[in-house]
Amino acid sequence: MDQNELKAQVGAEAVKYVKDGMIVGLGTGSTVRYMVDALGKRVQEEGLHIVGVTTSTRTTKQAESLGITIKDIDDVDHIDLCIDGADQVDDDFNGIKGGGGALLWEKIVNNASVKKIWIVDQSKLCHRIGAFGVPVEVIPFGAQHVFNRFVKKGYKPQWRMTDDNKKYRTDENNYIIDLKVGEIADPHALAEDLIHTVGVVEHGLFLNRVDMVIVGRDNGPEVLQAK
Amino acid sequence: MDQNELKAQVGAEAVKYVKDGMIVGLGTGSTVRYMVDALGKRVQEEGLHIVGVTTSTRTTKQAESLGITIKDIDDVDHIDLCIDGADQVDDDFNGIKGGGGALLWEKIVNNASVKKIWIVDQSKLCHRIGAFGVPVEVIPFGAQHVFNRFVKKGYKPQWRMTDDNKKYRTDENNYIIDLKVGEIADPHALAEDLIHTVGVVEHGLFLNRVDMVIVGRDNGPEVLQAK
Repeated sequence: MDQNELKAQVGAEAVKYVKDGMIVGLGTGSTVRYMVDALGKRVQEEGLHIVGVTTSTRTTKQAESLGITIKDIDDVDHIDLCIDGADQVDDDFNGIKGGGGALLWEKIVNNASVKKIWIVDQSKLCHRIGAFGVPVEVIPFGAQHVFNRFVKKGYKPQWRMTDDNKKYRTDENNYIIDLKVGEIADPHALAEDLIHTVGVVEHGLFLNRVDMVIVGRDNGPEVLQAK
Repeated sequence: MDQNELKAQVGAEAVKYVKDGMIVGLGTGSTVRYMVDALGKRVQEEGLHIVGVTTSTRTTKQAESLGITIKDIDDVDHIDLCIDGADQVDDDFNGIKGGGGALLWEKIVNNASVKKIWIVDQSKLCHRIGAFGVPVEVIPFGAQHVFNRFVKKGYKPQWRMTDDNKKYRTDENNYIIDLKVGEIADPHALAEDLIHTVGVVEHGLFLNRVDMVIVGRDNGPEVLQAK
């Protein structure tokens, strides 16, 4: 199967965990797009009553176009189940997110959710995360100083740019700096350093934040449970 | 002396540390306002050449009106000296800032500065910080969940409101939650908890971040050096 078929496979598999009446956190990205399509189908065909809480304006648009009721995160007191993608996942369920630029809202929704599932195609699994790079969301004010600090620390930072060569802006109007650190020996130590850096809002290291990973494989979806 | 006279006293004292050619970080607040006035006077009367980097749009307006050259923080590679106020300072130079709502930019400018001075009237000194409350800047998306989390932890959160009863927005368009924790036994532990809370951008605990505190006293300014 090609990558898109694997993404569609895990998207379809994940929505089986959605039950009537649930408040569901909806991630962002190309794999999630298939999942939201499959969820919209269940809403339309089965009359499933759910409320979606999204992690980006993109996902909001898609979900609403499919007839999924969307509420603002601050209009619900909890989220039952969050389904999101990931850019890399290791054996200990440490992941990297933020390739799509929505890491901040994704982490906030993850954090407000009772049960959390990642859906990934098999190419996202690895023994050590890092090769993807680590996206870091930073406050625009003073961002160059944060960038310079990352250079000094050997994090090999790169500004996330738009197609027309401007600095990318997140849904919260912040910048993203991608750290090209390579495989990370100690993700927790890096996370600690990043979160203590003044000007950093959030980073794309999601460490032990999910209960289940559904992996798209040629012979069908594989469900991994957190250790 | 009344409080305003003490604020004017330390404002005038602090600008003596500004030397020709310096890049100077300018804080925010009622005490800093006197300092910026005094600095503008030196620029006008002595022809002092300095560049100011401000921590709020308010301070930018005031400084520019006095003829002080202002540069964006990302247009300078460092700041020589930062002069700012504080809402409380303890014996170990742990402080609370954010009463004026500018704590994020203030911490970023503090962090980019080589030498840092706080100017306070004598009423700001205390043995343990906390009675002022701890301002916390939070991302609007999901802010109610952060607030609820603070309630559960016993931090007695309150939304910072505007005079017309809307949620206050910072220069970065975030909310401020004030924690009415009372005297804090371990400020470092609280800072760690806050910075690890997803949705928190920055908090008003400034721990060991200044080299000198100038205190306005009835018998003249007292200069305290970091231990």
